[in-house]
Amino acid sequence: MSKHTVLTGITTTGTPHLGNYVGAIRPAIEASKQADVDSFYFMADFHALIKCQDPEAIALSSKEIAATWLALGLDTDNATFYRQSDIPEIPELTWVLNCLTAKGLMNRAHAYKAAVQSNLDEGLDADAAVTMGLFSYPVLMAADILMFNAHKVPVGKDQIQHVEMARDVAARFNHHYGETFTLPEAVVGDNVAVLQGLDGRKMSKSYGNTIPLFLTEKKLKKHINKIKTNLLEPGEPKDPDTSTVFQIWEAFATPSQTADMRKAFADGIAWGEAKKQLFELVNEEISGARSRYEEILADPSFIEAELLKGAEKARAHATPLLDKVRKAVGIRSYR
Amino acid sequence: MSKHTVLTGITTTGTPHLGNYVGAIRPAIEASKQADVDSFYFMADFHALIKCQDPEAIALSSKEIAATWLALGLDTDNATFYRQSDIPEIPELTWVLNCLTAKGLMNRAHAYKAAVQSNLDEGLDADAAVTMGLFSYPVLMAADILMFNAHKVPVGKDQIQHVEMARDVAARFNHHYGETFTLPEAVVGDNVAVLQGLDGRKMSKSYGNTIPLFLTEKKLKKHINKIKTNLLEPGEPKDPDTSTVFQIWEAFATPSQTADMRKAFADGIAWGEAKKQLFELVNEEISGARSRYEEILADPSFIEAELLKGAEKARAHATPLLDKVRKAVGIRSYR
Repeated sequence: MSKHTVLTGITTTGTPHLGNYVGAIRPAIEASKQADVDSFYFMADFHALIKCQDPEAIALSSKEIAATWLALGLDTDNATFYRQSDIPEIPELTWVLNCLTAKGLMNRAHAYKAAVQSNLDEGLDADAAVTMGLFSYPVLMAADILMFNAHKVPVGKDQIQHVEMARDVAARFNHHYGETFTLPEAVVGDNVAVLQGLDGRKMSKSYGNTIPLFLTEKKLKKHINKIKTNLLEPGEPKDPDTSTVFQIWEAFATPSQTADMRKAFADGIAWGEAKKQLFELVNEEISGARSRYEEILADPSFIEAELLKGAEKARAHATPLLDKVRKAVGIRSYR
Repeated sequence: MSKHTVLTGITTTGTPHLGNYVGAIRPAIEASKQADVDSFYFMADFHALIKCQDPEAIALSSKEIAATWLALGLDTDNATFYRQSDIPEIPELTWVLNCLTAKGLMNRAHAYKAAVQSNLDEGLDADAAVTMGLFSYPVLMAADILMFNAHKVPVGKDQIQHVEMARDVAARFNHHYGETFTLPEAVVGDNVAVLQGLDGRKMSKSYGNTIPLFLTEKKLKKHINKIKTNLLEPGEPKDPDTSTVFQIWEAFATPSQTADMRKAFADGIAWGEAKKQLFELVNEEISGARSRYEEILADPSFIEAELLKGAEKARAHATPLLDKVRKAVGIRSYR
């Protein structure tokens, strides 16, 4: 029996923060080491062009994010780690899928509908500032997934619909042209850790309440000190279950460390002390990766080499599958 | 000063008829021999997938149409003759262009609007049976054109809007990312010969009144005999200017042959005799190409070799241009 294939897309814009790390990156990196799974991780740089038209930002962010995953120990020998833009088969497959994807399906995509609603609310044309990239994004995502016959696609809730669309398009292709694609399934973690941010709300770039993953020690300490707490004095017992400090502690601690901190809260640990210990705990987990990250960025040819290795492995799947697709639809050698 | 670049797309579905030959193919083949023009001719097989989901028909038709152009003497040493599907840079450029093409532009495309109107007229959903291929076709066409920095794109009237859209997208790209693409212009022949069909209306597949280009002599004669004429007897003078027989004659004859036939009409030539002479004239022009066509189809590896030669020449333009585009948008090596 062949191994299950799991495909994970990595957003190549923005700066990863502790919330991304705990909720998505850390578990994904753990998963990259599973020998019984055929896993694919890709830098979604074609997708990045939809949202960002600043070339310097695109290039820098993509490099930093690749460096982040490598520094954190993504297993590139076991898993396949590649840039979407290194696989010319993907945009080609996108076109083929376009030709049997109903436009009506895209009309119903949540992201597009949200953009339209927001335009209408502002009294604008329904499609104002909507590009063909935004509108047809689910077809590119279908190609990303179907290109590697992925069985499972770990995604956030907002992406479930897109995986279902990929499944739809795959089923339509298989029905019309014969069995070609695996029907993918979205996997949404039941207990995805959601970290709180500085202000106690979910840590999110859009709230401006994040703690970036690879800060210098000094800055990390400063950020942690800014976590909102209440006015309870040292010696007064504190409630761990309403505390962001405790919640982040739990995401990095062993169960026994968590039990110890719970006791310290009951015993009235000072906020300053709790934050100091939190800094040390977080710093201990990430300081190795942080140095490695700096090393890698100082020698980006390492990143390039890793990604080219990944592209080669990825194309070993993509090329024969695209050949099959081309034959199926009638694009054939004349020989 | 560099040469002008002219790009011509070839539809890879259907069977070419005398109307296509006189109106489009013959002048395009003449143009392929112009040494002072850098000309590109491509088999638009990605476009074919929009309209045709029958793989056998796609494969056969595409092969026959390539054979037709080669048999008629397309100059593949002077011009570049390639299959769209052999140039992976084209779908990749399509994606990049998607990201800065307004969806609103596509909403206004005539072909899409016609499909919507026809759906609404029938009481269907506006987008019924509209695929993403049909909807985003102008973006692929923009990539076809911009990929080779074409100055001139000879098209039928129905395609002028698409060339203008390509121009729009190119201007937007150049403005945002810096000078990259040539702004293309549609060229619509003032005096494109429009041939009449068997029933006297414009020769067109949709009227079912065509004379296919490469019929056997016997069938060609039969088709020509079916051209609608009036009931005037031999010896009665006939009006050349309302006669399909005369109109087709003129498209194949020298000026002096045309003058002779005009006189013969005035002198009351019998319809049977006029058709017999028309058959001989047409057959004389195409019989060499017809034999060559049969030879080529018997040895399709010749077609394949010609197209691979063309793909190599085409990619010598496409690869560096796409590199430039990738750098401009921020998709860069990490080295």
